[in-house]
Amino acid sequence: MIRVAIIGAAGLSGLELIHWLRSHPQIELSILTSSKYAGQTLEEVFPKYTGMSQSFEKHDANLDHCDAAFLAIPNKASLDLVPALLEKKIRVVDLSGVYRLNNTSIFEKYYGLTHTSPNLLETAVFGLPEYFKDQICEANLIANPGCYPTGALLGMLPFGNLLENLSTAPILDAKSGVSGAGGRVEDDTTNYVTVNENFKAYKIFNHQHTPEIEQYLAELTGYSMPQHGSLTFTPHLLPLNRGILTTIYLRFHDALPVEHVRQSFEDTAQSNPFMHVLPQGHFPDLAMVQNTNYCRIGIAHDDSRKNWIVVTTIDNLVKGAAGQAIQNMNLMFGLDESTGLI
Amino acid sequence: MIRVAIIGAAGLSGLELIHWLRSHPQIELSILTSSKYAGQTLEEVFPKYTGMSQSFEKHDANLDHCDAAFLAIPNKASLDLVPALLEKKIRVVDLSGVYRLNNTSIFEKYYGLTHTSPNLLETAVFGLPEYFKDQICEANLIANPGCYPTGALLGMLPFGNLLENLSTAPILDAKSGVSGAGGRVEDDTTNYVTVNENFKAYKIFNHQHTPEIEQYLAELTGYSMPQHGSLTFTPHLLPLNRGILTTIYLRFHDALPVEHVRQSFEDTAQSNPFMHVLPQGHFPDLAMVQNTNYCRIGIAHDDSRKNWIVVTTIDNLVKGAAGQAIQNMNLMFGLDESTGLI
Amino acid sequence: MIRVAIIGAAGLSGLELIHWLRSHPQIELSILTSSKYAGQTLEEVFPKYTGMSQSFEKHDANLDHCDAAFLAIPNKASLDLVPALLEKKIRVVDLSGVYRLNNTSIFEKYYGLTHTSPNLLETAVFGLPEYFKDQICEANLIANPGCYPTGALLGMLPFGNLLENLSTAPILDAKSGVSGAGGRVEDDTTNYVTVNENFKAYKIFNHQHTPEIEQYLAELTGYSMPQHGSLTFTPHLLPLNRGILTTIYLRFHDALPVEHVRQSFEDTAQSNPFMHVLPQGHFPDLAMVQNTNYCRIGIAHDDSRKNWIVVTTIDNLVKGAAGQAIQNMNLMFGLDESTGLI
Amino acid sequence: MIRVAIIGAAGLSGLELIHWLRSHPQIELSILTSSKYAGQTLEEVFPKYTGMSQSFEKHDANLDHCDAAFLAIPNKASLDLVPALLEKKIRVVDLSGVYRLNNTSIFEKYYGLTHTSPNLLETAVFGLPEYFKDQICEANLIANPGCYPTGALLGMLPFGNLLENLSTAPILDAKSGVSGAGGRVEDDTTNYVTVNENFKAYKIFNHQHTPEIEQYLAELTGYSMPQHGSLTFTPHLLPLNRGILTTIYLRFHDALPVEHVRQSFEDTAQSNPFMHVLPQGHFPDLAMVQNTNYCRIGIAHDDSRKNWIVVTTIDNLVKGAAGQAIQNMNLMFGLDESTGLI
Repeated sequence: MIRVAIIGAAGLSGLELIHWLRSHPQIELSILTSSKYAGQTLEEVFPKYTGMSQSFEKHDANLDHCDAAFLAIPNKASLDLVPALLEKKIRVVDLSGVYRLNNTSIFEKYYGLTHTSPNLLETAVFGLPEYFKDQICEANLIANPGCYPTGALLGMLPFGNLLENLSTAPILDAKSGVSGAGGRVEDDTTNYVTVNENFKAYKIFNHQHTPEIEQYLAELTGYSMPQHGSLTFTPHLLPLNRGILTTIYLRFHDALPVEHVRQSFEDTAQSNPFMHVLPQGHFPDLAMVQNTNYCRIGIAHDDSRKNWIVVTTIDNLVKGAAGQAIQNMNLMFGLDESTGLI
Repeated sequence: MIRVAIIGAAGLSGLELIHWLRSHPQIELSILTSSKYAGQTLEEVFPKYTGMSQSFEKHDANLDHCDAAFLAIPNKASLDLVPALLEKKIRVVDLSGVYRLNNTSIFEKYYGLTHTSPNLLETAVFGLPEYFKDQICEANLIANPGCYPTGALLGMLPFGNLLENLSTAPILDAKSGVSGAGGRVEDDTTNYVTVNENFKAYKIFNHQHTPEIEQYLAELTGYSMPQHGSLTFTPHLLPLNRGILTTIYLRFHDALPVEHVRQSFEDTAQSNPFMHVLPQGHFPDLAMVQNTNYCRIGIAHDDSRKNWIVVTTIDNLVKGAAGQAIQNMNLMFGLDESTGLI
Repeated sequence: MIRVAIIGAAGLSGLELIHWLRSHPQIELSILTSSKYAGQTLEEVFPKYTGMSQSFEKHDANLDHCDAAFLAIPNKASLDLVPALLEKKIRVVDLSGVYRLNNTSIFEKYYGLTHTSPNLLETAVFGLPEYFKDQICEANLIANPGCYPTGALLGMLPFGNLLENLSTAPILDAKSGVSGAGGRVEDDTTNYVTVNENFKAYKIFNHQHTPEIEQYLAELTGYSMPQHGSLTFTPHLLPLNRGILTTIYLRFHDALPVEHVRQSFEDTAQSNPFMHVLPQGHFPDLAMVQNTNYCRIGIAHDDSRKNWIVVTTIDNLVKGAAGQAIQNMNLMFGLDESTGLI
Repeated sequence: MIRVAIIGAAGLSGLELIHWLRSHPQIELSILTSSKYAGQTLEEVFPKYTGMSQSFEKHDANLDHCDAAFLAIPNKASLDLVPALLEKKIRVVDLSGVYRLNNTSIFEKYYGLTHTSPNLLETAVFGLPEYFKDQICEANLIANPGCYPTGALLGMLPFGNLLENLSTAPILDAKSGVSGAGGRVEDDTTNYVTVNENFKAYKIFNHQHTPEIEQYLAELTGYSMPQHGSLTFTPHLLPLNRGILTTIYLRFHDALPVEHVRQSFEDTAQSNPFMHVLPQGHFPDLAMVQNTNYCRIGIAHDDSRKNWIVVTTIDNLVKGAAGQAIQNMNLMFGLDESTGLI
């Protein structure tokens, strides 16, 4: 059994990790930390977890006997904690955003933090298994992708170098359930009467996931964005608990070969258990992916075959956070990537 | 024009008062206070109120030129403020719970506050216009009823002295939307992901509205509760914004005269514009009352005519708070009670 | 492997059976029927079930090679089909309401159907494993309990013969999500804009689950209801997908022994994996049971210890339908009752 | 008083018309028709309308004494009825889509209907008061705009001839509440459990509002779309009752003059009571427009000033249907356009 710690186990991502890992056949929950609930048992705080009498510990719990750790804590806390864990030879899957961007000045602009361990950026592997599987298997530090980038990248990367034919940079219109916005934060903006029966766009032209999408799109397809900021990414807040639907608009100079595009998506899906392409004319909704680790994808083009729309859906807490983190952990320890996730 | 102040104008009840009063033909919004937004205009903070350039002031704004004030502030704040306002001859409709109970020891038990102006309890009039109209017209201080008591009392009071035949004390099972629980409070319990797709009972056997229902039920029907606490009142939290539905269970020793009961409800409705009794076999839902000042009522009995169920619905922010407050203010100033409310 | 058929596999209960059985280690889905989708594969109709290429068949599919069948079809269809299946030695778990009541005239009054196989009523076993485990193990025909009766009975039966001390018959105020009301029915009453932001009571004094609760309560506790119809059961429709919360009001002549009552509930829970009693002062909400087979229970009493409130929650599609059906099937075939359900 | 008929008064748009017109000072509801409820009174069918004892009539009711009619019926029914009404000199505001497109072959492609009165297309005036006020005042037949086109056009038209500088055709990503999709239709697709906690795109690349947006955009700005179908419009279904938010992506060859653009929007808003532009950095949500006739607009650009995003919100049943229809009727009869709408 792999002994793991969950640092930040009482937040939404942490609880989602527990949900999946309690029945994982080869991962053992050794340490659960929570600054708020330290000393109380899991079932005391969350009666849903009947029979789980393990206690929360403080964030500075001794992890010496752990093989690995999931970090589900704020950006600044991850930045501070990761180097120490790696030094102790504890392998880390970090769900925060601090080891994803290789450009520290862009990082500082979007995150409002100075990067204190830029040296780790080269070691960190972006944990998108569909595209970085080999590196993940060898990694000590996984930067688990953001929820929006996961849905965005999986809908564009299969186009590969066809993206060089784009006539204008991609436009991504994304809609997320409230848990993606940090549902348990004690903040007016996620209050029930504020969100219910309501809908809004937010962080227009300046969401921190924009450079993450740009960087990995460029790295993996050779598509060179006209310049940083060319890609448009607009997040919106849906009045529901879970799920992200991303509508991706791609416009090309020339008509694309329809079969070639579809084949490319299906080839990717063929070798990746959690990517699923719907038949022509069908599109995914959120109900198809909630509480699963799947990314489901629908592809459309107009009569000219120059204008394409890709719709992707994921559960932001699973494929967009905890599920993908476990998929990465599985790979790091030589397990089948879907272990405990189906 | 009657010049009024709204103390606590940026909370849910305060905003609901503004919504109705902005088109009230005889009430003028002189002062709006908000400790949080003092100095900002209404339309700046709430863009929904386009064109309302009035600024919020601090709670200690000078009210000398006001004829009356609505208090939509926490219990303790009302307790402190009311005596001073009355001294200045400003008539007050207080939406808090502090002037409703005539027994200060019960008050202190349920509210956790010492009553600092018990002398005002005799002057204060319970603002349920269907039963206290004459007193309201003369009052300087209105204790605006709680949202739950409004729906509860209007479903029981028309039984009048028939209630003396009850074989067991009434059981009230009430369900409220989130705005009734203080929707804007920055509190985990009204966070979207906590409430959405969820439902729970709360404050079982100890909600502070229980003695309020008991007191006015006894006062108005002569029904003497076997003892304080005999009546059972259980509130529940609905995943929706507005509305309270109360299911009232009444069991009698003897079969009741069906026509007599129905006539009694219809007589009450006849002389009260906001009480509406549905035809036999029909029951109200929340959609029928949302954004209105109505209390709608359905009445059922079983074959024995000893077991009765009354279902009432109100909008907790209107008949359960701001609308009823305006209805009271209308009466205090000699206006038709429905002015500005239809 | 036990080969089973699901008759009516494309309805909400049928799909819930598929969801749980696809990963059940000892049950094999041999036949799935749907009159609407016969000929199409599961994944074609419901893309959520990626990779399940089994086709729906017509309701008259040949079941000769099946060991057992789940029936998730309308009452009349079950009434017609069950005798033929039993004759073929196919063991049946029937999710309809037609084999639950032993009094056919009450059945006919509430269901509007003439009972065509009253002889089977003696053989049929009420599939509430917490109270009929031995009989279920031997049964050929299980009448799977109604969703409301499941939540109602599990909250009252542990009182046992203490119920003889009741001063008035129980009052049950139940609130169900929309899937319990037949969510996929093409009917205005479950239309989104009708249900959303709304709440109502329905079938007041005449819901068909009332006699089911009365019958098994009497049978199992010796409590003799003053007469049929004494117990009051009021269902309400919640604006959410899944879950039933039942608030049970019990009033006794005498003060009950608190520890004795709690011990009785805990003893029942101890020997039943899906019954969970919360600690004193805690009450279950729907989020604690959604997508699980648990019934979670909270118990309260007032200072007199004569007035008790029990709150139970279940997922109406799991413990209230498909999960309980699988629990029964497990028992019928000698498996651990929780197989495939945790 | 203007005597009007509402043909199709029991649908969502019809009921919304009643809601606003019952307190309209100069319009009298003479005839309400409903094929389903003919013979019943309004308050019998919809208890929310207490005191409205007017009966529904059949669709072929005698309208001779009416001055005007609102048509809130299906496309085919409007197509059949309008010519006869005009012949009787009854002025018509048609909420269907059949008199909006001037190209009958595009009409037939998107609506699946042959146009039987193409001669009326020249007389019909597109009822967008912000841009066709003079023509509306003189019109006998108003083609009330589609809900999506209203939100889309008001967010683009103020750019005027700047649109000629677009480097790629506009992309519109729109999200609508369920009432916009025909909430009361007895159809599985608007069933509660299908829609709740779910989100999807629909009619990708082929929604019938696309040519309506294209036609009026070209007509009013001189922007010549590269070709029909260049503009991309993608509707999505939100799990809420009311409101449309449209995110409009505009990319230009050159940097636009920021102040000029904002001024152009504000000038339009200045002369139109229901158009509201939020300050720089602020964006509208649905709560700001629900149950109002406003279109609220937020405008953003990136650092290059070549990429612009406009976000507009309306209530699909008010500015997107009934409210705009009344605004048009007001203008047709020489009233202030906001009469009865504030």
